[in-house]
Amino acid sequence: MSTGFHVAIVGATGAVGAELIQLLEQREFPLEGLKLLASSKSAGKALKFRGEEIPVETLSHHSFKAVDIALFSAGASISREYARQAIADGAIVIDNSSAFRMEPEVPLVVPEINSSDIRQHRGIISNPNCTTIIALMALYPLHVTFGLKRVIAASYQAVSGAGAKAIRELSLQSKAFFSGEPAAPEVFPHAIAFNVMPQVDVFLDNGYTKEEVKFVNESRKIMHHPALRASITCVRVPVFRAHSVALNAEFEQPVSVERAHDVLAKFQGLELVDDPGSKRYPTPLLAAGKNNCQVGRIRADSALDNGLAFWVCGDQLLKGAALNALQIAEALGK
Amino acid sequence: MSTGFHVAIVGATGAVGAELIQLLEQREFPLEGLKLLASSKSAGKALKFRGEEIPVETLSHHSFKAVDIALFSAGASISREYARQAIADGAIVIDNSSAFRMEPEVPLVVPEINSSDIRQHRGIISNPNCTTIIALMALYPLHVTFGLKRVIAASYQAVSGAGAKAIRELSLQSKAFFSGEPAAPEVFPHAIAFNVMPQVDVFLDNGYTKEEVKFVNESRKIMHHPALRASITCVRVPVFRAHSVALNAEFEQPVSVERAHDVLAKFQGLELVDDPGSKRYPTPLLAAGKNNCQVGRIRADSALDNGLAFWVCGDQLLKGAALNALQIAEALGK
Repeated sequence: MSTGFHVAIVGATGAVGAELIQLLEQREFPLEGLKLLASSKSAGKALKFRGEEIPVETLSHHSFKAVDIALFSAGASISREYARQAIADGAIVIDNSSAFRMEPEVPLVVPEINSSDIRQHRGIISNPNCTTIIALMALYPLHVTFGLKRVIAASYQAVSGAGAKAIRELSLQSKAFFSGEPAAPEVFPHAIAFNVMPQVDVFLDNGYTKEEVKFVNESRKIMHHPALRASITCVRVPVFRAHSVALNAEFEQPVSVERAHDVLAKFQGLELVDDPGSKRYPTPLLAAGKNNCQVGRIRADSALDNGLAFWVCGDQLLKGAALNALQIAEALGK
Repeated sequence: MSTGFHVAIVGATGAVGAELIQLLEQREFPLEGLKLLASSKSAGKALKFRGEEIPVETLSHHSFKAVDIALFSAGASISREYARQAIADGAIVIDNSSAFRMEPEVPLVVPEINSSDIRQHRGIISNPNCTTIIALMALYPLHVTFGLKRVIAASYQAVSGAGAKAIRELSLQSKAFFSGEPAAPEVFPHAIAFNVMPQVDVFLDNGYTKEEVKFVNESRKIMHHPALRASITCVRVPVFRAHSVALNAEFEQPVSVERAHDVLAKFQGLELVDDPGSKRYPTPLLAAGKNNCQVGRIRADSALDNGLAFWVCGDQLLKGAALNALQIAEALGK
C-alpha cells in the first residue's frame, strides 16, 4: 500500500458495480489499480474507466492476489463464498451484502455515524442495508440530540434495490401496461408497474420480512443502541432508484421542530428540504443521483410523546450502497 | 318516496360519478329515477344507464326538485354552494366531499362501523375521506376487540383520489417518460410517474397536510373515540385506483395475531389476505375493482406494547368513495 490502493469490485457489471466505477472516477480516491470481477456470464465484457477499457475478469478463488480493498456487491452467497479468500490473500473486504452484517466482530458502518467502528475490523467491514442507511442519516442526528426511544417506519423502496434486472422489469411492465402486451413478473413476486407490494426480501416466522428485521437489528448495531424499539413495513414502489421512508420517532427528551431543523441541517451528508409552503420536500426523483440524503416534512408527532414525524429520501444506489461502501474505503485510507 | 328513490348524482361525469352509476346498475337499490348533474362544461353530454342514454344536466339551484337523495361528489366548494338548496327542496344529501364532515350535527358514516349514526341526520350525511374509510375497515374491528389507544400510519394513495384528470396525468407522464417528451405536472405539485410524493391536499400550519388531519379527526368521530392518538403520513404513489395503508396500532388489551385474524376474517366488507408463505397479501392491483377492502401482513408489533402491525388495501373509488356513499343511501332505504 505505497501510494494508493489496488481495488477489486466483485459484481462489477451489476447496478451497484456501475455506480462504484463512476464514483471512483469522480472522487479523489487514492487508486493504484482497479480489477473488475463478475460471474462467467460477463466473460469477455469490458467496462470503461477514465477513458480506458478494463476487461471484466471471471471471479475465482485466485482473483484477490495483490488486492488491497475488495468491494463486494454480488449478493450474500457470493460474499460467503469468496470474502474469506480475499482476506487470506491480504485484502480488506467491504461487503455490501447482508452476509456478515450481524456478526459481532464485523463493523457495520455508516461513516457519518460510526466511522470509529472501522478500526475494530478483522478483514471485513459490512455496508448496511440501503433503507437502514437512508433512514439513519436523519434518525441518528436526532438520536444524538433528543435520545431515540422508539421508531415506527414505512418504506417506499425503489426497484434498483433488487438490481439491474428489476430496473428492466419495471420498465418493461410499464410499457407493456400501455401496449396491452403481457409482462409477467420475474424478479418481483407480483407486478410492480402501477402497483406497490408490502414485500421486500423473504418472510420470516414472526411475519416480518428479512428486510424489516434488518432495519431493526442494523439500526441498533450502527447506533450502538441495543434497547431501541423499532418496527417497519417495507414496501416496494414503482420508482427507479431512490428510496423514501416515512418515520415516526419517540425521544427521551422534549423535541421541537426548530431544534430538529438545526440539527438536521448541520449533519454531514444530509440536506434539509423542508419548506412545504413552497411545496418543497424530498421526493425520490429529487434525491436520485445525489450523494446527500434529503429530509423534510418534519412535524411534531400527534401520536407520540416527545415525538417527531418526518420523511427521508436517498439514492439507493449511492448512499444506500456504492457511495457508503466507498466512503468506508476512503476512511480506511486515512 | 312510494316505491323507490329519485336519486341525483352531482359530479356525474367525474371518476366517482362513473362508479356511482355503475354501482346503481349492479346493486338492488330501490331506484325510481336518476338525474345526472355536472358543470356546464359537460352540457350536451349523455351517459348510459341500463341501456338508456341519460342526458347530463347542468347543475343549478333548481336541480333538486323532486329529488329524494342527492349524492354529491364534485368537491367541497360545490357541496357548500348547493347542498343546503337540495335539503330545502326535500332531498337528503350524501356528501362525498370534506365540506361538512366535522360539523357536529352531520353524521360521518362507514355503514359497517356506525350506521346507527345515520338516524341523527338533519339533511346531510357525510362520506368520510377515502384513506380513513379504508384504514378503519381493518382498525375498527380490532378496536372493538382490543381497545385502540394509538395508531401510526403511512399511506400509499392512488391518483384516482385526485379525480379523472389525475388518472390521465399518471398515464400521460408514464408514456412521456419512455418517449422522452416532456409532461409537466398539472394536477399534482410534482411529477407522479416513477415518483412518490409526501403531499396529499394542502399543508396546514402544524406541518401536517389537510389529508393527514382528516385521518385523525374523522377516525375519532366515526369510531366515537375522541381520545384516540393518531398520526399519518399521506403519500401519493403512481398507482391508478386502490389505496394502501401501513398501520401500527397500540391497544389497551393484549393482542395476538390469531385473534386478530379471527376478528378481521369475520368483519363484513373486509377480506383477510394473509398468507405470506404463498406471497399472498393485499396489493392495490389485487384490491382494484373489488367492493371489499383487504387486510394482511398482520404481525405482533416490535415497537409497541400490545401492538399489531398490518397492511390494508381498498379500492379508492369504490369503498373509498362511491360504494360507501351508496351503502349509506341503501341504509336510508331500510
